[in-house]
Amino acid sequence: MGTPAQQQQQKKPQTAITPTRADDFPGWYQEVIKAADLAENSPVRGCMTIKPYGYALWENMVQIFDGWLKDYGIQNCAFPLLIPVSFLAKEAEHVEGFAKECAVVTHHRLEADGKGGLRPAPSAELEEPYVVRPTSETIIGDSMSRWIQSYRDLPMKLNQWCSVMRWEMRTRMFLRTSEFFWHEGHCAFKDHEGAEKDCITIQDMYEKFFREYLAIPGIKGIKTPDERFPGADQTYSIESLMQDGKALQAATSHDLGQNFAKSCNIKYQDETGQEQFAHTTSWAFSSRVIGAIIMTHGDDDGMIMPPMVAPTQVVIIPVIKADEDPAVMNAANDLAAKLKAQGLRVKVDDRNMRTPDKMWDSIKKGIPLRIEIGAREVAEGKLTHVRRDIGKESKTTETTEEFLGNVKNVLKAVHDNLYQRALDFQNGNIKDVSSVDEMRAYFADEKNIGFVRIDYSAVKDGGVMDAMKKDFAVTTRCLPHADKGQKVLVGRSY
Amino acid sequence: MGTPAQQQQQKKPQTAITPTRADDFPGWYQEVIKAADLAENSPVRGCMTIKPYGYALWENMVQIFDGWLKDYGIQNCAFPLLIPVSFLAKEAEHVEGFAKECAVVTHHRLEADGKGGLRPAPSAELEEPYVVRPTSETIIGDSMSRWIQSYRDLPMKLNQWCSVMRWEMRTRMFLRTSEFFWHEGHCAFKDHEGAEKDCITIQDMYEKFFREYLAIPGIKGIKTPDERFPGADQTYSIESLMQDGKALQAATSHDLGQNFAKSCNIKYQDETGQEQFAHTTSWAFSSRVIGAIIMTHGDDDGMIMPPMVAPTQVVIIPVIKADEDPAVMNAANDLAAKLKAQGLRVKVDDRNMRTPDKMWDSIKKGIPLRIEIGAREVAEGKLTHVRRDIGKESKTTETTEEFLGNVKNVLKAVHDNLYQRALDFQNGNIKDVSSVDEMRAYFADEKNIGFVRIDYSAVKDGGVMDAMKKDFAVTTRCLPHADKGQKVLVGRSY
Repeated sequence: MGTPAQQQQQKKPQTAITPTRADDFPGWYQEVIKAADLAENSPVRGCMTIKPYGYALWENMVQIFDGWLKDYGIQNCAFPLLIPVSFLAKEAEHVEGFAKECAVVTHHRLEADGKGGLRPAPSAELEEPYVVRPTSETIIGDSMSRWIQSYRDLPMKLNQWCSVMRWEMRTRMFLRTSEFFWHEGHCAFKDHEGAEKDCITIQDMYEKFFREYLAIPGIKGIKTPDERFPGADQTYSIESLMQDGKALQAATSHDLGQNFAKSCNIKYQDETGQEQFAHTTSWAFSSRVIGAIIMTHGDDDGMIMPPMVAPTQVVIIPVIKADEDPAVMNAANDLAAKLKAQGLRVKVDDRNMRTPDKMWDSIKKGIPLRIEIGAREVAEGKLTHVRRDIGKESKTTETTEEFLGNVKNVLKAVHDNLYQRALDFQNGNIKDVSSVDEMRAYFADEKNIGFVRIDYSAVKDGGVMDAMKKDFAVTTRCLPHADKGQKVLVGRSY
Repeated sequence: MGTPAQQQQQKKPQTAITPTRADDFPGWYQEVIKAADLAENSPVRGCMTIKPYGYALWENMVQIFDGWLKDYGIQNCAFPLLIPVSFLAKEAEHVEGFAKECAVVTHHRLEADGKGGLRPAPSAELEEPYVVRPTSETIIGDSMSRWIQSYRDLPMKLNQWCSVMRWEMRTRMFLRTSEFFWHEGHCAFKDHEGAEKDCITIQDMYEKFFREYLAIPGIKGIKTPDERFPGADQTYSIESLMQDGKALQAATSHDLGQNFAKSCNIKYQDETGQEQFAHTTSWAFSSRVIGAIIMTHGDDDGMIMPPMVAPTQVVIIPVIKADEDPAVMNAANDLAAKLKAQGLRVKVDDRNMRTPDKMWDSIKKGIPLRIEIGAREVAEGKLTHVRRDIGKESKTTETTEEFLGNVKNVLKAVHDNLYQRALDFQNGNIKDVSSVDEMRAYFADEKNIGFVRIDYSAVKDGGVMDAMKKDFAVTTRCLPHADKGQKVLVGRSY
């Protein structure tokens, strides 16, 4: 019988992750990362170490999207990690938004401190300090000012994959860390039309990438002025709804107008010989998208990896008794080879562990498809497979031949299911309201989650959103393209 | 007739690069980089910007070698960019070798300086400063101390691709810059045998990679104690000879013994339950290898790209008169599609430029194979191609069909020729000497370049090498495996 608390606990289904999403979403999030062995906090304040399984996910994402960028005509390059402080001061709005919390390099040498440790050498203080790049508009703009001479040099489309640093006081792995990984695209065009088209094209690429590879639905829109990138004329974003009902800005493209061109002196001679300022853009998605994957798909048993980018798409667990080793292991390895030949990422879990521990490990890691092969299966030429997104109800035993002919469809079905349930959740959590009062009443109840959709004209002026932010910690997320800029989504966000 | 100086100038063959290698090798090197558009100095002291053509070369190298590392069982991950200063102080020899010249982060915020600029905010001084990683043994060692518990966790094989910073006062693009790109492998093993085997396996991989992909011959050996990595028991290196007769250390693998395991506390429980310190290794090659490619293969007309990693392997130059545009351009594009279908990296140079300018551009960029197609070639179903490594003597006109059947062999021949002539140069510049006096006499003549090979026992003690360094700026490069540790190579180096 036990205490009421114990009784309640007994009633709950057992989950691999404690706490559950319902009990404590942020606590659940941290535990999922730990249980899936994706990353951990490092000894460097606010920075994380991305562990092999987490980094493999990022590498898969990078490889695919980098190919798309190259097809779009992007050229990768590498700009310095450090940025002179004077560069940051060039663009007034930009410095306001970014300069504050940076890692500042002031010395170029250490020396013994006389107490067995090291200290910055006073004789090696830099004349001008540097910051570790928080973003690279200013230093890439400086290069563009030299690389661009004529209209023939335009468009110029550059990108770099790198890490950046913004000193954060309250950090959460993947979502907000002082150092994070991203790509940053920086392009220059002759005119506004070129820059605008670039932003929209890239926004479409982001939405497609999230949909087709991460199984994450995104709402395409533009940001309200107060939520724009510092120094941008227009910010295009993808907003996604996490399972706790908070929005996550998954990717942005910025139309920088001529602001950075003027502060960085990016000029070109046009077809008539006149000097003109270029129009520039910048755009990015970052390793925080891994946080979005966790919070979109994960369940109370842990991570669920979207199959298209999963580091391991199929795990094979040999259910072995000591005297049956060779046949079962041979069958597992043979199956793995056949799956690899289909281009799939496969792993045979041959570790010296109990079978149930291996099963739970694969569940917590979110491997989309788990195969179990025991002696009887081998004898019958069969195998059993279980989908991670559905669990034991999807348990299927079939011949190896049938499975091999169908495995890609099964993985596709996992992907489609993940996307559809995220889309249903998102669509089911957009509340249309017709007045500010109705919006306030909605968010006054903390159980109400997701987006409110309201006429933009109703919240645009008069301090409406200042009050919303102060009272309910909600902000405008975007003006969806689908509503032609007439409506705005309001909600809590990461 | 002109002045004597002008006459002399007229006598020299025209070259695309001024100065020539013979006139001023360092000046030639800088000009090759500029003419090939590989990189440029940045506004950040000692740091370079790698431009798209240079970065594409690096990306090709990364892609290939990363695949090899994964086949070897390496797991990529990402460790923080910053390292606490106290970490550097952990390994005594290591700190002596590395701590001195680093980018030191002392503040986490900027503030307005009242003069329109920004300064580090005094209120945001860090309690403990960080350095931008000069190398990551200490911070990866810290993770390993937590990740490794038992002999079952070993070997642990980690790697990251990143940039690192070592403050340099005298910089040269690719060869010595404050920020440079590299991969750094870090492994832990149960015993000395595991660590030693790892170092040798990786050294073999480096030599094979340089030979098969970069067409650079390398001499495998071990470093003398004074030239080892700070904190290593043994350093294995690949040494290559540049065209000016100076050696370049192209890659190293370090057997760190138990030194870092002890300072970082990397322990494991062995099969008998006893606690043991692990044996660790680290190894790397960096973007300085691009400097080695330039100085191994380049000629007085500029860069020569090794075909296996060349960003563009084949350039097609349509030799166009206005009224023939469509047919020639169509043929060029059709040919490009067929070469791409063979997996080759191809570019049609359709820029609005004079044909000779395009030819010279492709020469200076070092594109291994240049194709010219004009109206007559199109009419006859033929094309003309020229190898970059040989030049106009290799000019061949043949049918498009013949060419398509043979193009991979031609590229292979370019590669083989580049490797063979570099190998001949290297082998032809190793001078065997039988005494220190003979070695001194050799280097006393500045015209004498390359390596001296001498009994290691003759130079090991008694300050012989200190005097050699002081008098002739030469050092021991390595004890070649081929000489079983009995001989040492001595020479000038980068």
